Amino acid sequence: MEDQVEVVARAFVEHYYNLFDSNRASLASLYQPSSILSFEGQTIIEADPIQQKLSELPFGQCKHFISTVDSQPSVVAGSIIVFVTGSLKLVDEEHPLKFSQMFQLIPTLDGTFFVQNDIFRLNYA
Amino acid sequence: MEDQVEVVARAFVEHYYNLFDSNRASLASLYQPSSILSFEGQTIIEADPIQQKLSELPFGQCKHFISTVDSQPSVVAGSIIVFVTGSLKLVDEEHPLKFSQMFQLIPTLDGTFFVQNDIFRLNYA
Repeated sequence: MEDQVEVVARAFVEHYYNLFDSNRASLASLYQPSSILSFEGQTIIEADPIQQKLSELPFGQCKHFISTVDSQPSVVAGSIIVFVTGSLKLVDEEHPLKFSQMFQLIPTLDGTFFVQNDIFRLNYA
Repeated sequence: MEDQVEVVARAFVEHYYNLFDSNRASLASLYQPSSILSFEGQTIIEADPIQQKLSELPFGQCKHFISTVDSQPSVVAGSIIVFVTGSLKLVDEEHPLKFSQMFQLIPTLDGTFFVQNDIFRLNYA
C-alpha cells in the first residue's frame, strides 16, 4: 500500500509540473470546486479562480526541477499527501528559485485524483 | 471558519516548535498510534517510534525560526493542514539551515488536535 502511495505521488508530480511548464491552462482539470490553493500566502478557492491565478503569475515560461518527493496516505480512504521540494527556473532569470509545495490528492470515481489542497511557497535564501 | 483554521494553525506552530526547542521528549503527546512522520525521506509510524526518532536526531539543542505559516481546512471535519517554512539553528553551527514542514492536524474528542501526518525536509541551498 505504501508503495502504491509513492507510485501515485511520483506520477502526479511528474504530470503536474510537466503541465505547469508546457501547458499551464490545462492544470484546471486537476482541481475541483472544493479545491484550495495557497500561493505565496494568497488563498484561492475553486478550480476556475485557481486556474486564473496560475495563468496570471508574473512569469511566462518556466521549468521546475524536483529535488525531493515525499508521500503519505491521508485520512480519507485512498487520499494521499504529497510534499515536494525543488527549484523553479524562470526563462528570464539566471538563478533558479527554491520552492516547496504540498498537495492533498483525493481519489475520484473514475479512478483518477484531484487536488483538494495545494500550498506553494518560495524558499528565499 | 477560515480565521479559526489560521488561529489553530498558528497556535499549533508556536506550541510545536517551543516544545521541540525546549523539551523534545514532550512532543510524543502530539502524536498517536496512527501518526506518520517523514523526516528527510525516512518514514516512521506511531507516536513512540516518532518520539524516539525525534530524540535521536544528531543534534542537541536547536532553535527554530518561523518564516511563513500557511493553513487550510482538510477533508475530515475540523482537520487542518499546516505548512511551515523557516530556519533551524543548531547550537554548534554558525549558519541556520532552511527547512519546510507540513502537518495534518486531526481534532480529538477532548477538543485538542493530534498530528496525523508530518513531513519535514531541509532545503539545501
